[in-house]
Amino acid sequence: MSTDAAGPQRHRVVIVGGGFGGMLCAKGLKKSPVDVTLIDRRNFHLFQPLLYQVATGGLSPANIASPLRSIFKKQRNCRILMAEVSAFDLDTKEVVTADGRRIPFDSLVVATGSTHHYFGKDAQYEPLAPGLKTIEDATEIRRKVLGAFERAEKEPDPAARRRQLTFVVVGGGPTGVEMAGSIAELAHQTMRQDFRSIDPASARIILVENSDRILQTFAEKLSGKALKALQALGVEPWLGCKVTDIRPDGVTIDRGGVVEPVPCETVVWAAGVKASPLGAKLKEALPAVELDRGGRPTVTPDCHLPGRPDVFVVGDLASHKGADGKPLPGVAPVAMQQGEYVADVIDRRVRGLSSRDGFRYWDKGSMATIGRNRAVAETGKLKLSGFVAWLAWLFIHILYLARFENRVMVMWQWFFNYVTRNRSARLITNAREDRA
Amino acid sequence: MSTDAAGPQRHRVVIVGGGFGGMLCAKGLKKSPVDVTLIDRRNFHLFQPLLYQVATGGLSPANIASPLRSIFKKQRNCRILMAEVSAFDLDTKEVVTADGRRIPFDSLVVATGSTHHYFGKDAQYEPLAPGLKTIEDATEIRRKVLGAFERAEKEPDPAARRRQLTFVVVGGGPTGVEMAGSIAELAHQTMRQDFRSIDPASARIILVENSDRILQTFAEKLSGKALKALQALGVEPWLGCKVTDIRPDGVTIDRGGVVEPVPCETVVWAAGVKASPLGAKLKEALPAVELDRGGRPTVTPDCHLPGRPDVFVVGDLASHKGADGKPLPGVAPVAMQQGEYVADVIDRRVRGLSSRDGFRYWDKGSMATIGRNRAVAETGKLKLSGFVAWLAWLFIHILYLARFENRVMVMWQWFFNYVTRNRSARLITNAREDRA
Repeated sequence: MSTDAAGPQRHRVVIVGGGFGGMLCAKGLKKSPVDVTLIDRRNFHLFQPLLYQVATGGLSPANIASPLRSIFKKQRNCRILMAEVSAFDLDTKEVVTADGRRIPFDSLVVATGSTHHYFGKDAQYEPLAPGLKTIEDATEIRRKVLGAFERAEKEPDPAARRRQLTFVVVGGGPTGVEMAGSIAELAHQTMRQDFRSIDPASARIILVENSDRILQTFAEKLSGKALKALQALGVEPWLGCKVTDIRPDGVTIDRGGVVEPVPCETVVWAAGVKASPLGAKLKEALPAVELDRGGRPTVTPDCHLPGRPDVFVVGDLASHKGADGKPLPGVAPVAMQQGEYVADVIDRRVRGLSSRDGFRYWDKGSMATIGRNRAVAETGKLKLSGFVAWLAWLFIHILYLARFENRVMVMWQWFFNYVTRNRSARLITNAREDRA
Repeated sequence: MSTDAAGPQRHRVVIVGGGFGGMLCAKGLKKSPVDVTLIDRRNFHLFQPLLYQVATGGLSPANIASPLRSIFKKQRNCRILMAEVSAFDLDTKEVVTADGRRIPFDSLVVATGSTHHYFGKDAQYEPLAPGLKTIEDATEIRRKVLGAFERAEKEPDPAARRRQLTFVVVGGGPTGVEMAGSIAELAHQTMRQDFRSIDPASARIILVENSDRILQTFAEKLSGKALKALQALGVEPWLGCKVTDIRPDGVTIDRGGVVEPVPCETVVWAAGVKASPLGAKLKEALPAVELDRGGRPTVTPDCHLPGRPDVFVVGDLASHKGADGKPLPGVAPVAMQQGEYVADVIDRRVRGLSSRDGFRYWDKGSMATIGRNRAVAETGKLKLSGFVAWLAWLFIHILYLARFENRVMVMWQWFFNYVTRNRSARLITNAREDRA
């Protein structure tokens, strides 16, 4: 690592997690007199908001993921370690990896995000209802969705065919809305002429939402517009409903007291997230840590653990009280801003500069797409919907990806898709055990 | 399917295999008064010659694969069935699939290609030395190659590190040459600055070839140029050598009588192919079928089984005597031309037109790339090497892919790679069981 020939060891920053928070923190330390080690289980940074496009064959995994080593190639004070962190030793100030290595730190930033929350029914639900957080989640959903149409094409029994052509998406937040809209578009438009025995337009896509409106965090008016756009695509929104059981051949839905079985083969879980297991590991290392109901460690306004100004937690993993006293949402911009904030805090400390105020989230707004050319977006008092909102969404996402080289690729693939109404990444690839 | 309201059933052509042979046969029947059923285990057509690019992260799977349903969307007389064929009943003239369906045919075209030949050591070699025939082969090799560098970066023991940074490619034909050149380029150029503990340029890439020269089927002069180009990339060609054992921690190589153990973790098998198992299934259905040493059914000059003018075999699976009495090679242009030939034969028969002469292969030449901007190519007496040959190779491949929509995507990805010397599809993705 880069130390002066005869100088003292530089301040070591260890960042766990190469997502939005971890990556922007590492980048923020580019000019800082520190040595950064960025640890991730995977070798790439994943742009999660576009996973739903991979899940429906609109984009390839490589369009939304960038190898971390590429991103940090020119940042000489940063090294990448591909490893799984299994524990923290906050007394000796070391991070412990699954393969037994101990990596010492002076400052630690934990940014491992969140994972799917099945509300206690993990063992039963997880194999049947994948969520959408990783590349493998997306390709598995893709395999199930596309495979369902293939099986239906060959299926002589009408009841089985109906089941194969029924898709249930659980959760009416942005992820659920985008998934449902995307599957509906695939079935009712993209693949309409592709089959001979079945009519893909007959596929049912049901979006189940607990509350009385989708996109709860958006303005009511935009929720309404999104609902109409979804219905225009052929999605059936079941509001005020709750999934009470998931089995291989269908789900059971509580519709305001009436229990209705819905035979289906494909269920996508977009109904809840909880903290990564490293939240609990932090508490093991430091019992004074408080975890919220989702397993997230509570942090101070400066984004560090109470009593431990050397240990920061950012992003979806952190429970940080925003300006209104409520915990900040688990969205990308929060993680990005916190990552950059913490980099600045560390840099000032190391240089002996005055410290800055607590973290303040600058809410630039929210967006969600519905299908190929509709979206809803709000920023401050400005509310957009329809095609204009979709253009804004496209622009913002490409800007982000531009930082990490994917822009040209993604642009072309989208442009191509849009013009040809095709989905060029529509491959059913096998998982390892059925390699043939 | 498309039949006249009151007319007789149309001639049913069943094609097994959506590769070069099967797909061009189906396309060739576009205007024919027949009903085509194209069966494949996968939902896409795969452009195999570019698999080595996926295996080293230069292209994504979706760049070289096209969903069959997309390709045939507008061909109304063709339907796609995603199924695995398990047997043939040539008495009742039916194809039997693994899920128990029986699909009747009037003409049958079997085009299921070839698979890896481990010369009797399948059980031992296959898990350790993947070949390069499927998407999953390519992503597994990618996982191993990229993973090796990641592990070496963390590895304190120098002997283990040396082992992780040693790559052995078995087989000096085009596939082996392209793989070896590609890995060498990845290690010695693309990833040169990406690591902090190891120097990827120190990686050893050994290409093991039985005979005294690589690219045996090319002119001697071109083999020599290819050898030099490989060496310039840092590949060590071991000619006149034979792999005698493969174990998890290394291979054993017989170097002209001297047995040398080579510790390594990554082995790629490009040393031989044999017929798909459906060759043997054809013999089961019709004992008079003769299989050659590689399991390929012998066919008449018209590409059908002796005594069965309604059952055709094309492509890598077929053993067809060329003009010089030797079986035609298992290369893409042979499969493509045979596929188109058989479509014409069937069409003439159905229309009651005169039959045509036996199949004649038009050998337009061969090409192989070495690294990012070198290749060797020969056509007739014309021999090209170096950058000019590489341009020709690029042009021919893009022309082919152009037919199937991928052209724009592939062009951009290559252009981008070439300009930035990057490999944008360098992701280590997990197989299903280690989803995390």
